[in-house]
Amino acid sequence: MTNLILTTLDWVPDFPRGFVRDLRIRWALEEADLPYEVATTPVGDAEARLPFQPFGQVPWLTDGDVTIFETGAILMYLGEHSTVLMPTDRPGRTKVMEWLFAALNSVEMPAVPWSLYRWADDETQSPGRAHLERFLHGRLDHMEVVLARRDWLAGPFSISDIAMADVLRQLQDYGVFAERPACRDYVARATARPAFKKAFADQMAHFEAADAERAARSE
Amino acid sequence: MTNLILTTLDWVPDFPRGFVRDLRIRWALEEADLPYEVATTPVGDAEARLPFQPFGQVPWLTDGDVTIFETGAILMYLGEHSTVLMPTDRPGRTKVMEWLFAALNSVEMPAVPWSLYRWADDETQSPGRAHLERFLHGRLDHMEVVLARRDWLAGPFSISDIAMADVLRQLQDYGVFAERPACRDYVARATARPAFKKAFADQMAHFEAADAERAARSE
Repeated sequence: MTNLILTTLDWVPDFPRGFVRDLRIRWALEEADLPYEVATTPVGDAEARLPFQPFGQVPWLTDGDVTIFETGAILMYLGEHSTVLMPTDRPGRTKVMEWLFAALNSVEMPAVPWSLYRWADDETQSPGRAHLERFLHGRLDHMEVVLARRDWLAGPFSISDIAMADVLRQLQDYGVFAERPACRDYVARATARPAFKKAFADQMAHFEAADAERAARSE
Repeated sequence: MTNLILTTLDWVPDFPRGFVRDLRIRWALEEADLPYEVATTPVGDAEARLPFQPFGQVPWLTDGDVTIFETGAILMYLGEHSTVLMPTDRPGRTKVMEWLFAALNSVEMPAVPWSLYRWADDETQSPGRAHLERFLHGRLDHMEVVLARRDWLAGPFSISDIAMADVLRQLQDYGVFAERPACRDYVARATARPAFKKAFADQMAHFEAADAERAARSE
């Protein structure tokens, strides 16, 4: 790899800070001790992002001539360049792939839509909503069984834990772990890692610097 | 690879037939012309599936000593064993990974929860539901722009098209493609492939054979 550049938004309001998806990539880069720079794209100009990210979102990672979007794909890309993030033997690698997809396609799939209702303080009950509730809680019940038996999903800590822990972390303020201690402890274990702490602090500092710049410009 | 065994449910009611996730794997196996056998797990016994699939679902793929769950991970595994499903050069492979994760984490994430409401004939409107509607339609609008410019997502047909076309196919009866002809044509193009037709027919035949067996047993 050459000079890695991680592109994220130049500014966001307080609410999503600490949860912008560049966090997953910062975390992986810190775990692997890979140096990188941060570039920004204007929050209000989704059109400008389309050549790099077809949904107008962040993040994307640039490695010389290559630009990669989708956090799952970026995590795989970094995993292939660092034995700290993913083992190189086929069985170990296969386990990491399983759990990476499990995080993003089996657990995050109900988690994000379910969270949309929470963010909206929407208490409206309906048959479709009941299906969505069961979908999320079913997945969390299964994760509770899995996490009661192991520290990390695929043996040693890997990119699959970065994805799963960050997916679960986004639910932790909504009371879903009150009776799921293994999920709660897993999130605590993952977010206690120095690489997570550094990544989180760096994301917060990035947006605080943007606040300061905005304030200076408006004076 | 050795003898590939794809495990799916022994029987399902009419409604999900043609949409059980083993279809994505059958499709990939047919595209790659890889021989495989089908094994079954009793539909009513999710507990029995947990050693192979931590959410109690199907499918999983067995390749000798290795068992793989999550359709995304199985598609990657097969892609790494067949140049028909994924190119071997790094830039080509990276594009396939991006679009595979885009299908499963950016498009299927709103598509399945949104479909839960349709399946339930649930017309209840609420703020959270409005967010979910915007989430899905925003992603489809972006896919329309992408698909208006290319036949397949990552250059040649690949596992990313199997995932994306199957995600979009599940929405096609709900009117969302009336003003999105590129999405509609992409699904038509993908499902016209002989490998899809074979996979689809095989899944339907699998469950029809199960009906016949049930009928014979109850006589």
